[in-house]
Amino acid sequence: MAQVIHSIPELQQWSRAAHKAGKTVGLVPTMGFLHDGHLSLIDAARANGADAVVISIFVNPIQFGPNEDFAKYPRDFERDRALCEARNVDVIFAPGVEDMYPEPLTCHVYENTISKNLCGKSRPIHFEGVTTVVSKLFNAALPDVAVFGQKDAQQAAIIRRMVRDLNFPIKIITAPIVREADGLAMSSRNKYLSEDEHRRALAISSSLFRAQKTFAAKPGIAAAKLIADIRAEITAAGGLVEYVELTDSDTMLPAATLEPGKSFTIAVAAKFGTTRLIDNIQLG
Amino acid sequence: MAQVIHSIPELQQWSRAAHKAGKTVGLVPTMGFLHDGHLSLIDAARANGADAVVISIFVNPIQFGPNEDFAKYPRDFERDRALCEARNVDVIFAPGVEDMYPEPLTCHVYENTISKNLCGKSRPIHFEGVTTVVSKLFNAALPDVAVFGQKDAQQAAIIRRMVRDLNFPIKIITAPIVREADGLAMSSRNKYLSEDEHRRALAISSSLFRAQKTFAAKPGIAAAKLIADIRAEITAAGGLVEYVELTDSDTMLPAATLEPGKSFTIAVAAKFGTTRLIDNIQLG
Repeated sequence: MAQVIHSIPELQQWSRAAHKAGKTVGLVPTMGFLHDGHLSLIDAARANGADAVVISIFVNPIQFGPNEDFAKYPRDFERDRALCEARNVDVIFAPGVEDMYPEPLTCHVYENTISKNLCGKSRPIHFEGVTTVVSKLFNAALPDVAVFGQKDAQQAAIIRRMVRDLNFPIKIITAPIVREADGLAMSSRNKYLSEDEHRRALAISSSLFRAQKTFAAKPGIAAAKLIADIRAEITAAGGLVEYVELTDSDTMLPAATLEPGKSFTIAVAAKFGTTRLIDNIQLG
Repeated sequence: MAQVIHSIPELQQWSRAAHKAGKTVGLVPTMGFLHDGHLSLIDAARANGADAVVISIFVNPIQFGPNEDFAKYPRDFERDRALCEARNVDVIFAPGVEDMYPEPLTCHVYENTISKNLCGKSRPIHFEGVTTVVSKLFNAALPDVAVFGQKDAQQAAIIRRMVRDLNFPIKIITAPIVREADGLAMSSRNKYLSEDEHRRALAISSSLFRAQKTFAAKPGIAAAKLIADIRAEITAAGGLVEYVELTDSDTMLPAATLEPGKSFTIAVAAKFGTTRLIDNIQLG
């Protein structure tokens, strides 16, 4: 039975006891409404040495802008709990907003470089909300290993940077994107899509796969050509492209050209109907 | 023999081993050039349960403004080491700038309310440098208890707030001001004062003591009167007053009036010659 913990001091106590017992603690931070992508992060924690796994389920208000979907973000704790049980999670940390923010914070953690690009342009407060809540979750769960999904590649890069800059004693694992059978990157927000929007949104993943294949066949191709093709395919499917950008895979900072021997990530954000989706693919 | 550690991973390893051995780890963060004030913090760590004490000695460049005294800040590691040995410190953590900042940080911790008042007005980047380096030191030493001096009352209030907001699993102790026999609050910067400046700078502590006595005798006195008297005494001694302010002792936020039953702190910053000094006293 997974233990459900709501209080931060109780989680800290649990983690310290686990450490004293010689265990390696893994943390999987999520906003709940779990899908196979989240569940793969639990497996990644175990594969990276965690013998006690905490999953946190918390829809974090401070990473949503005023016109974003905080209120309607999907929540289903009992469903999440059953999925966690089936995956042998040790602790489900499910704090209330009053546990995490008993008063408005005056202290925040921010990243000033990676966070300005990609999603940071349209979501100006988002990543400060993420770095702040992840710092709180790190200090609450005191993990040795924490796992983030590559679907949110910019977030993962920011967390890697935060851990390095602030010396959190935590190994960060970035786990591969898990996709629906039809290619759409799994996201709790996919639930917002109508059947028609879902079908049309496949242009995101299919255009990224096409770019990956084109690059494998012609490594000398100009990045601008790959990007223009992705943009065209998404637009043709009725998607509203927010960005398609070439970035360095490690830092997620903008890259100008596809230099040989390095790994690049093409990152996409686009809207289908009112639903904003992100995805990315690695080249090289 | 105190163990000297320069590397962050080595300190993390030491602290984890201490915890596994059932020890309570105390941290005393300093910029070195130790005086009796610092040494009292070591004793306060032990008095609050620490059976393994780390003192960090690091002159933190990112908390100094461009026209401040980073380069000339006094340093004497061998003298500090001897004082720590005599006080039975377990670990002296003395990282180089290259250990703490192998590259410029893109991630910082900031406090946006307490830090805007008092010293924050004339030292706009100071407290962000403090909260960031203290976060790094916390993650490096992984203490259970950390001790800060009441001389830097605003800093202590910001750290208490940071620990609460970000959930650092650390008990923060604020230890009383230690003074020279003549009343001057101990500070590594006292070394900058000429004999004449030192003598004149006693107006800071003597005016604060006078305010404390006046308040004890007439609890109904107006705060503005106490503050005007302190300001006048320091100015008469040739000091350049930066601020004299009434604040709430816990939050160090400005207070308008001396309400009965609450604790207030009068905080002072003033320059004698080129040396900027701070001091404070509690009322109620």
